[in-house]
Amino acid sequence: MPLPPEFHAIAKRVNNWGRWGERDEVGTLNLITDAVVREAAATVLTGRRVPLAVPLRQRGIQTGLIPGRVNPLHTMLSVNQQYAPESVATSDDAVTMGLQAGTHWDALPHVSHGGRIYNGRPADSVTAQTRAAYSGIEKARHVVSRGVLLDVARTRSVDRLEPGHAVTPEDLEAAEAMGAVAVGPGDIVLVRTGHMQHYLAGDRRAYGNSSPGLSIRTPEWFHARDVAAVADDTLCFEVFPPEIEGLWLPVHALHLVEMGMMQGQNWNLEELSAACAEEQRYAFLLTATPEPFEGGVGAPVAPVAVL
Amino acid sequence: MPLPPEFHAIAKRVNNWGRWGERDEVGTLNLITDAVVREAAATVLTGRRVPLAVPLRQRGIQTGLIPGRVNPLHTMLSVNQQYAPESVATSDDAVTMGLQAGTHWDALPHVSHGGRIYNGRPADSVTAQTRAAYSGIEKARHVVSRGVLLDVARTRSVDRLEPGHAVTPEDLEAAEAMGAVAVGPGDIVLVRTGHMQHYLAGDRRAYGNSSPGLSIRTPEWFHARDVAAVADDTLCFEVFPPEIEGLWLPVHALHLVEMGMMQGQNWNLEELSAACAEEQRYAFLLTATPEPFEGGVGAPVAPVAVL
Amino acid sequence: MPLPPEFHAIAKRVNNWGRWGERDEVGTLNLITDAVVREAAATVLTGRRVPLAVPLRQRGIQTGLIPGRVNPLHTMLSVNQQYAPESVATSDDAVTMGLQAGTHWDALPHVSHGGRIYNGRPADSVTAQTRAAYSGIEKARHVVSRGVLLDVARTRSVDRLEPGHAVTPEDLEAAEAMGAVAVGPGDIVLVRTGHMQHYLAGDRRAYGNSSPGLSIRTPEWFHARDVAAVADDTLCFEVFPPEIEGLWLPVHALHLVEMGMMQGQNWNLEELSAACAEEQRYAFLLTATPEPFEGGVGAPVAPVAVL
Amino acid sequence: MPLPPEFHAIAKRVNNWGRWGERDEVGTLNLITDAVVREAAATVLTGRRVPLAVPLRQRGIQTGLIPGRVNPLHTMLSVNQQYAPESVATSDDAVTMGLQAGTHWDALPHVSHGGRIYNGRPADSVTAQTRAAYSGIEKARHVVSRGVLLDVARTRSVDRLEPGHAVTPEDLEAAEAMGAVAVGPGDIVLVRTGHMQHYLAGDRRAYGNSSPGLSIRTPEWFHARDVAAVADDTLCFEVFPPEIEGLWLPVHALHLVEMGMMQGQNWNLEELSAACAEEQRYAFLLTATPEPFEGGVGAPVAPVAVL
Repeated sequence: MPLPPEFHAIAKRVNNWGRWGERDEVGTLNLITDAVVREAAATVLTGRRVPLAVPLRQRGIQTGLIPGRVNPLHTMLSVNQQYAPESVATSDDAVTMGLQAGTHWDALPHVSHGGRIYNGRPADSVTAQTRAAYSGIEKARHVVSRGVLLDVARTRSVDRLEPGHAVTPEDLEAAEAMGAVAVGPGDIVLVRTGHMQHYLAGDRRAYGNSSPGLSIRTPEWFHARDVAAVADDTLCFEVFPPEIEGLWLPVHALHLVEMGMMQGQNWNLEELSAACAEEQRYAFLLTATPEPFEGGVGAPVAPVAVL
Repeated sequence: MPLPPEFHAIAKRVNNWGRWGERDEVGTLNLITDAVVREAAATVLTGRRVPLAVPLRQRGIQTGLIPGRVNPLHTMLSVNQQYAPESVATSDDAVTMGLQAGTHWDALPHVSHGGRIYNGRPADSVTAQTRAAYSGIEKARHVVSRGVLLDVARTRSVDRLEPGHAVTPEDLEAAEAMGAVAVGPGDIVLVRTGHMQHYLAGDRRAYGNSSPGLSIRTPEWFHARDVAAVADDTLCFEVFPPEIEGLWLPVHALHLVEMGMMQGQNWNLEELSAACAEEQRYAFLLTATPEPFEGGVGAPVAPVAVL
Repeated sequence: MPLPPEFHAIAKRVNNWGRWGERDEVGTLNLITDAVVREAAATVLTGRRVPLAVPLRQRGIQTGLIPGRVNPLHTMLSVNQQYAPESVATSDDAVTMGLQAGTHWDALPHVSHGGRIYNGRPADSVTAQTRAAYSGIEKARHVVSRGVLLDVARTRSVDRLEPGHAVTPEDLEAAEAMGAVAVGPGDIVLVRTGHMQHYLAGDRRAYGNSSPGLSIRTPEWFHARDVAAVADDTLCFEVFPPEIEGLWLPVHALHLVEMGMMQGQNWNLEELSAACAEEQRYAFLLTATPEPFEGGVGAPVAPVAVL
Repeated sequence: MPLPPEFHAIAKRVNNWGRWGERDEVGTLNLITDAVVREAAATVLTGRRVPLAVPLRQRGIQTGLIPGRVNPLHTMLSVNQQYAPESVATSDDAVTMGLQAGTHWDALPHVSHGGRIYNGRPADSVTAQTRAAYSGIEKARHVVSRGVLLDVARTRSVDRLEPGHAVTPEDLEAAEAMGAVAVGPGDIVLVRTGHMQHYLAGDRRAYGNSSPGLSIRTPEWFHARDVAAVADDTLCFEVFPPEIEGLWLPVHALHLVEMGMMQGQNWNLEELSAACAEEQRYAFLLTATPEPFEGGVGAPVAPVAVL
């Protein structure tokens, strides 16, 4: 169906086209200023590091629902190959994978609507031969900022949110209150639903099917706070099935196209949840630079929170 | 040829097997303690961020010399695909690549000698079907520490070192002096030869052929300083052709097998060199977590220096 | 479990090692003489052609049971790319796939037992870096001979054999009688179980799970007839689960290792079954040359029967 | 530049759109009737088989000139993997490759001009997500017919034609006369330039650069004879550089788009040349069914001539 009026109304309110100039390709990453990074570094108190990526493997997150988004096929090119007898031997490996198969960032041109991607550029600037001419994932260059965990599951005292639970601005604010933290400009917000537990327990299908995720009402909240990027622990990122029947991926369209804000999916926030609860603080240094595939509409990332 | 006595003599002096227990799989990464990370965070003064990865693309660093280590073949799985008329459209992509094709870390089992990998484990624990059973790259989990740039080219007042120039401990100490920095336990050392300029200028063959790189004498120096990891801006990492005729990859064997120390190759240190010179300081927060391929003997990484 | 005495007894009776010389790499393909090919051509009466390969696609035969044997990931490298305005435009494509994912031949070194492959060569002549040094699929060069369809399902007046049905020599002889055809030296035998109907009907799981297939008693029959190769319409080729508990893939080992006889899997024999029934003849010219991957232990093939 | 008037004049004369109905997807393959196949089978006199594919390997035909058309990256998924001690062991492999990297057929939608592919269908029916909706290579189903070798190099008493030599209708007719053969309806014509010798001798660059090939004048000749398909022993198929400056791939456009006739490239005709000369006959049974990639714009093929 055509995008409904309520979508367009929100789109108008959160639109960032032109905000950083006509030629801008990175959107809300502009909000990560040197000052923000300095403050982020100042959050490091214990030096504890928590990885947020799920290991990459063939029995990974994908179950075949999204055509072509294949789990890593990781093979050895050589095994202990010697160049001469009794010499040093080397082993090499290679991979084939969907760039959005595991823990990843969506680049801004991952989504279009009305023939447009972020900053009003034509959607057909993405082609099979050139990939993304604008806002490819390699343009992100460095993603280091203050990270804030909004632990919605913990705030609600549940192991994990139910499939279909739409995380609202009220949920986010309750999590802020629980964590005694205030989301601000340039922050990268990590929203924990707990849904990743299904995958970690080996139930790939439960993970991939319907899931909790962000409500269509949250982009305005992120926009008001001038957040730099958002990631969560689900496959779809936003709630699935969608809140408005037939309206697919509205949060994707609002974040990526209208706001120019990258989204992270399939982040493992379980260990981080425990660490933040233990240390009683929910802000930290977050480092999450995507692999710089030229023209990529997404890329794997190995994020680390440093507390 | 069999590994010569001088190799074995050095190997004995730098060997770390058992140092962190029989079951250890990460070697010198153990040296990155919480305290080291806190100090690393304290080096952030301006908040300036410098990416150190070269973009991933088909006309990338590999030129076919290393069988199977292919540059990324990056293709679109879909382009602005709509699920319904006038709806949101998505684009997806996928890649096939050698895990060591671009800016990467070598995992410890990338190299073996005498049938052994790090910590004395059998080399045949690496197989086509399981890949690396021990010390796979996913075991690194988080690589965040203090980074130190030893800018050998700048110290010698040359644009770049000549091919065949073996970087010695004396070179490293001169660079320390120039940078007014002292390498210490847990540091990740970045050695700049300037050789990456060839690649950046589009001369892939000049980059890939003979090159400057680390001397067989440097592992002892890194060992003495208790360095956590070392990376440089060349394809081979160590000087090529080798210093001792017929002795291939001795530095690889000493670092990866004996010391259990990861190595980074094809790092772009040009922008960082300029930044450090400008800010007159050569230590910074370095974040460089590899993509966590299970059992990987190497993995791409998108490192960032935060000054 | 170790291979049981009954296996070894059969192995001894069907073994062809040395039969075509110590250096032979193609085994029973030697039985396809020029005379056999001339006779095969003489079977062409109507000129009707029947393709026997299933189309290659991502939602193909594999369901993830066999690690790494991935269905084709087929992507466009370019779409209507013009080199100049208003000029001719080209589209290119690429694929990643398991070589045994669709309709394929197993090469002789696909299987080993007791450390040996066909003709007594060491199993460790297959390595990650060299692949198969002996009897790689490219050695088959040309596979054109008389094909004989043994339509076991039709002979038994069923749509398809039940899962677990072990096709016996008696089944094969009944099918010969039904088809008024006698299998002889150099023939390529196609054994139809009808099991492919599950896949063609879209039930990939029913196809991939337990299935009918050849009994451990059939290799002796093929050996006695001096058959050149055998193919059928199942994933496993031989009956699955196996007839002797814990004895995996005995027919594979007897055919590939002992006899040096290639096996074909996932062949679509449905249209051929109808054609043979209609024309009341079960012998034809069969052309089935595998794609010549150097050192391949299997390869896709697009076989065609010419009646 | 826009396609010149001489191109359009030829296009008008050879156009087959609608000839086999509006819904036709296979063009001149319609000319291979059952009768043609029966006659093809009757050409088999000695039973000698000659393979025409070059082996598939990483150091194959491609040298990087055509973006993404990568040589096979062929890796082992497992090597002698046992499921239980002392049991049967299996080895599996996988590949990533450009579908036009080695010996292949171009499917009809490989080329478009003026926004059209064969039979007037829109060029934009080829997309990244669906690939070719019409005339994909899987539609060829079975390619078996009479093959005719037109050995232009031998006719001219040279080892091979010079780069830039445009093979003309007169060349083709001289080769017919030399071979005492007349090309007729449904034939698959193999044009030998001898250029493949460069590749076979290991000079991949000489093979890939400028080459002999078909003249823009030949499509009319093939059209007049009602040929079903044409293949040759070069990378570009048609003469390169082109005969009319700035007019790229006119023969491709005439064959694929206007006539609906598949083209074969990188066929090794050296052994066949010797066999035909020895047997003094240039017609034979040719079997050349492409791998049936759904929606493929090209596909590898392992052709065999049966004499």
